[in-house]
Amino acid sequence: MKRSVQTRMVNFADCDSAQLVFYPRYFEWFDRCTEMMFRAVGLDWDRMFGVDDWNGVPLLDAGANFKRPCRLGETIEIESWVEEWRGRTFLVRHHIRNKGEIAVEGHELRAWTVIDKSRPAGLRAIPVPREIVARFDP
Amino acid sequence: MKRSVQTRMVNFADCDSAQLVFYPRYFEWFDRCTEMMFRAVGLDWDRMFGVDDWNGVPLLDAGANFKRPCRLGETIEIESWVEEWRGRTFLVRHHIRNKGEIAVEGHELRAWTVIDKSRPAGLRAIPVPREIVARFDP
Amino acid sequence: MKRSVQTRMVNFADCDSAQLVFYPRYFEWFDRCTEMMFRAVGLDWDRMFGVDDWNGVPLLDAGANFKRPCRLGETIEIESWVEEWRGRTFLVRHHIRNKGEIAVEGHELRAWTVIDKSRPAGLRAIPVPREIVARFDP
Amino acid sequence: MKRSVQTRMVNFADCDSAQLVFYPRYFEWFDRCTEMMFRAVGLDWDRMFGVDDWNGVPLLDAGANFKRPCRLGETIEIESWVEEWRGRTFLVRHHIRNKGEIAVEGHELRAWTVIDKSRPAGLRAIPVPREIVARFDP
Repeated sequence: MKRSVQTRMVNFADCDSAQLVFYPRYFEWFDRCTEMMFRAVGLDWDRMFGVDDWNGVPLLDAGANFKRPCRLGETIEIESWVEEWRGRTFLVRHHIRNKGEIAVEGHELRAWTVIDKSRPAGLRAIPVPREIVARFDP
Repeated sequence: MKRSVQTRMVNFADCDSAQLVFYPRYFEWFDRCTEMMFRAVGLDWDRMFGVDDWNGVPLLDAGANFKRPCRLGETIEIESWVEEWRGRTFLVRHHIRNKGEIAVEGHELRAWTVIDKSRPAGLRAIPVPREIVARFDP
Repeated sequence: MKRSVQTRMVNFADCDSAQLVFYPRYFEWFDRCTEMMFRAVGLDWDRMFGVDDWNGVPLLDAGANFKRPCRLGETIEIESWVEEWRGRTFLVRHHIRNKGEIAVEGHELRAWTVIDKSRPAGLRAIPVPREIVARFDP
Repeated sequence: MKRSVQTRMVNFADCDSAQLVFYPRYFEWFDRCTEMMFRAVGLDWDRMFGVDDWNGVPLLDAGANFKRPCRLGETIEIESWVEEWRGRTFLVRHHIRNKGEIAVEGHELRAWTVIDKSRPAGLRAIPVPREIVARFDP
């Protein structure tokens, strides 16, 4: 299973009044890292939207366990991978490391969706195509 | 147990390219709603910071289950309450309703912290004071 | 010229490590207030997108002058109005008041756009329709 | 005058429903780039806060002129520099380039502040120290 790692600095823009990362930012980073994980295997969302009615990978569930704080000026690593393909959905794990220790463990359960033309603004989940899974698990 | 309800409209500023709420926004709203729930019982964070070394209620765990989408222009209700006081921590639940149906169920596990002067930028959790709990459960 | 006023509290979620509003938030609020100003005259963006190829009001220019800080727990008022219709563009002004004083003066210069089918992902500006202007200046 | 360049990809997390960057994000990026510009000359905000009562560089004015859109998946460069030191304030310029063209021109006018102990939560601007200016203009 391919893993993707993003490195970033905790900026002033990320911090709350305690100079710790404001926690919703972690979920924004998870979203970015999932996107970059797809890009790393040649699957660019900007080129995929609309093709075969693909409409993205909306969330069914998300969570994070905060083990250690991340502070202004610290450089963190976010490792992301698909832990399980479950037909129409897939589970992404994100581990954030700070100074070698795991600071945050997160997950996202996402659906593979296409536009459902039978309803206005409708979406429906379809099985993740084999060729997509194969990019991650060659 | 006192419950707090916040009503808001889903704005363009909240939406991703599918005109659905970009999911980290839900966690930002949870944070706002927890703050407003405290304000509703007379506990204003802006007046509490620093008093008796109080340093806020950082997250230990957060999660959300997304049952139905929330779209641009929809008015949603977010109901928030403390489900359980657990000594140094407490569990907040958030239910987001859209057109009468539950759209998102979320939780936040938070710690009650004071500045730990023994370490630079240190925090430590202490038991939530009885008078704080009593504001919610009179 | 119709004016729209939005009232909001400065939350923890809005503040930086100095417990002042993190300044990009002001621009997010400007965007929300422009949307709400349109809604106040019956122009709901969610119902307008796509109709007659309408594609929103993207920014050409934005700015803000910060006169006084806004802090955690303060309630502010944001007054918004179209100062000038300029054919294909229009100038929105935003005044943020805090305790009766102007805290921030902002502007947004926006274009009225439709989808330009001659280019992939293309937009082009067209004159703001008279019936739209008339909603604001009856 | 030293210049700092940050490169980043426009992610799904940055985009609005038109798959263009949601404009307040540009100001968030300006804030990040100003911070990184200081870091590039050895001035790390996380180590500066509190030293000699330093309390950051709050905004007096900010603005942006949007010349070309930036879209999902595009890689942009943000060049930042101090254009002018004005005693207690300084003017930062940011140019965002996309495919070799300038997409956004922005500025931030910031004050150099210390804690003003004569007032609760007070700040006051003082002249930017010579040794700070010298880091940028050696």
